[in-house]
Amino acid sequence: MDPGTSVMGYGIILIKGNAAQLIQYGVIHLSKYTSHELKLKKIFDRVTGIIEDYKPDEVALEAPFYGKNVQSMLKLGRAQGVAMAAALSKEIPITEYAPKKVKQSVTGNGNASKEQVANMLKTILRFESEPKLLDATDALAVALCHHYNANSRVSGSKSWKSFIKDNPERIK
Amino acid sequence: MDPGTSVMGYGIILIKGNAAQLIQYGVIHLSKYTSHELKLKKIFDRVTGIIEDYKPDEVALEAPFYGKNVQSMLKLGRAQGVAMAAALSKEIPITEYAPKKVKQSVTGNGNASKEQVANMLKTILRFESEPKLLDATDALAVALCHHYNANSRVSGSKSWKSFIKDNPERIK
Repeated sequence: MDPGTSVMGYGIILIKGNAAQLIQYGVIHLSKYTSHELKLKKIFDRVTGIIEDYKPDEVALEAPFYGKNVQSMLKLGRAQGVAMAAALSKEIPITEYAPKKVKQSVTGNGNASKEQVANMLKTILRFESEPKLLDATDALAVALCHHYNANSRVSGSKSWKSFIKDNPERIK
Repeated sequence: MDPGTSVMGYGIILIKGNAAQLIQYGVIHLSKYTSHELKLKKIFDRVTGIIEDYKPDEVALEAPFYGKNVQSMLKLGRAQGVAMAAALSKEIPITEYAPKKVKQSVTGNGNASKEQVANMLKTILRFESEPKLLDATDALAVALCHHYNANSRVSGSKSWKSFIKDNPERIK
């Protein structure tokens, strides 16, 4: 998810073995709703709907930690909070990634442009048609970033000790 | 509700005729949870529980619009967003009040201290024992502020036209 106060992007991928497959992506337009509460309600309802439709095992969130001013950060925080609540209410774990980390993971360059990210996604996820909306590709990039990072945690850098701690049922 | 990132206060009042009656108040401590996601999950779970227990018709929120820095405002926004989502998910209308407005409504002075607000609440809501936690009294103050303001809207400044629009079932 890439929650914002005027547009919120989402992308769903399926991991088979080590390969990522595109399932769905889209954008929720919020600027048409004049009231801030109504925007938040729409975010909650739509994210809840997406979660119910696709039943994701995990949710990843693109979360900028800095912004222009305190007012816009409060509003962004609310949008993030409401989107996170939709996942939390269904006990789905959430992982956050900073925008730089997402770009780095997907393109190898933390300062890549939105277009560069979109092009790389097209190659990795084998889009048939180009996504019209860059906000949705941002969300797909977070999903892919989470796949790469979760994957390396489990099979690579994670210690045996922490594996045992996290997976007690797998030790006989 | 008075959502914060380390402490969240809540207060529940019942309106009978024009009188406000104290039902419950309390504080949710969040600083013991180290992870930010866990804090948000606790806020969502506790607020959902309170809403299910007391079934409020309306929710009022104390919402500061300014803060020290963008980081803390993002976190506050998330806490607010998660608390609001708990109400939004149950279709309960939310109204926000700035801290100054709350103090003004309850004490007549927008710059009243927490202690002055607590003392006034004690008089209005007839506390048997003094609430130990000022964060809970802040939340009760928001509830009372909402009562005063919603009340004056319906019986006073609200036009007949808007009353008909909002209450079609009351017109024969």
